[in-house]
Amino acid sequence: AARRGGGGKMAAWARAVRGLLLDVSGVLYDSGGDGGGVPIAGSVEAVRRIKASGLKLRFCTNETQATREKFVKKLQGMGFDISVAEVTSPAPAACRILKERSLRPHLLVHNALVPEFAEIDKANPNCVVIGDAAENFTYANLNEAFRVLIGMEKPVLISLGRGRYYKETDGLKLDVGAYMKALEYACDVQAEVVGKPAKMFFESALAEMGVPPQQAIMIGDDIVNDVGGAQRCGMRALQVRTGKYRSVHTLHPALR
Amino acid sequence: AARRGGGGKMAAWARAVRGLLLDVSGVLYDSGGDGGGVPIAGSVEAVRRIKASGLKLRFCTNETQATREKFVKKLQGMGFDISVAEVTSPAPAACRILKERSLRPHLLVHNALVPEFAEIDKANPNCVVIGDAAENFTYANLNEAFRVLIGMEKPVLISLGRGRYYKETDGLKLDVGAYMKALEYACDVQAEVVGKPAKMFFESALAEMGVPPQQAIMIGDDIVNDVGGAQRCGMRALQVRTGKYRSVHTLHPALR
Repeated sequence: AARRGGGGKMAAWARAVRGLLLDVSGVLYDSGGDGGGVPIAGSVEAVRRIKASGLKLRFCTNETQATREKFVKKLQGMGFDISVAEVTSPAPAACRILKERSLRPHLLVHNALVPEFAEIDKANPNCVVIGDAAENFTYANLNEAFRVLIGMEKPVLISLGRGRYYKETDGLKLDVGAYMKALEYACDVQAEVVGKPAKMFFESALAEMGVPPQQAIMIGDDIVNDVGGAQRCGMRALQVRTGKYRSVHTLHPALR
Repeated sequence: AARRGGGGKMAAWARAVRGLLLDVSGVLYDSGGDGGGVPIAGSVEAVRRIKASGLKLRFCTNETQATREKFVKKLQGMGFDISVAEVTSPAPAACRILKERSLRPHLLVHNALVPEFAEIDKANPNCVVIGDAAENFTYANLNEAFRVLIGMEKPVLISLGRGRYYKETDGLKLDVGAYMKALEYACDVQAEVVGKPAKMFFESALAEMGVPPQQAIMIGDDIVNDVGGAQRCGMRALQVRTGKYRSVHTLHPALR
């Protein structure tokens, strides 16, 4: 029989949860513009407790400023219990698509991400892949990507995420979505988004965990990319009040 | 009585034409990335003949890489009969709006355009003005404009044109419209466009000529900014096959 009070009142869906999908930047740590960052209070311990609880755990990030190897090493350095095999990120998903469709990318990405595309033929490009290129978002590089794209009979633009902006320790930065929109507009094309909030991205993560959407929860700081994307896949989702969440509350009403 | 053959078959609307609005870049000359450029064959002579014919003439440009003074000096150097008083361009129109609405801009524009805003108070900005900043479209400058905008209670973004791209002697370049879209998306705002294809821009040019729209023709190389904009004001418009026109025909079907 159900007990009175808080303890036993756990909802049926919550008892059914077998897997957690965790966003990383803004949830576990605040990233720094220098490639570093600082853990958010309590998050190292939270990951440890989730793992000890027996729940399945998957780190779902749109991080494209580093290979998964470097990204994981950074988080391990902060004390997180995390391995490359537990991370779902856009670059490997993009590589699968490139191979399946015989696409040869012109890359507009962060230098540190390039090794993820080592196995991919990049000669005579027939598509453009854009990621969070950060300092590589120069006027010259954007014009070059534009010219490659506009020169195609049927332009193909693949975007590693569609985030508007993110918070680094030294302030807010434009994310890949803003530059994706610039190229979309200039070439009158629509980008194919790989990464959150794409349905396929969440489905891959669920498959990797072996958990159906009804038994999984996504936890993130982005209402569109984390929460909205997960919900469209039939998952429940929670928005944390760290990362970009707080900064959003100091912004104009349209973003609240 | 009407004669047979081509000579006398001029349409009634053509006989009524009293004023011409001429786009400049891509119609009179092809601009160079260095701020120079080369006149398009026959265009110097064409301007001379239009003026000799007694037609009223107005140069309507979205040029925002130089002050009108410098722009006119460059065209005079190529042999064109043109003066500053004959030019309608976005920066002076933007200045009128800024003054009327007590707006203090953060400028994301070309260095050479800054003198057009000399009289404008730019302290403690409450709007962002974006032009074709070219080399000033750096990652740092875009992030700065974004932060100014997102920090406002009610972001105001004024864009000097909304062109997708243009042709310079060394190739196609992204125009201000692409960067405008990036900021629009990141901040969830809609820019106010000053310059072509804004109706107010064409109306100003017509007022300056003292010619009603039914008696004016716009001539340009851009189907949206020149032709579409003019037609929405009740003018007729002609698209020339110079400037970006030709390059468009080598592009994908959506842009033809």
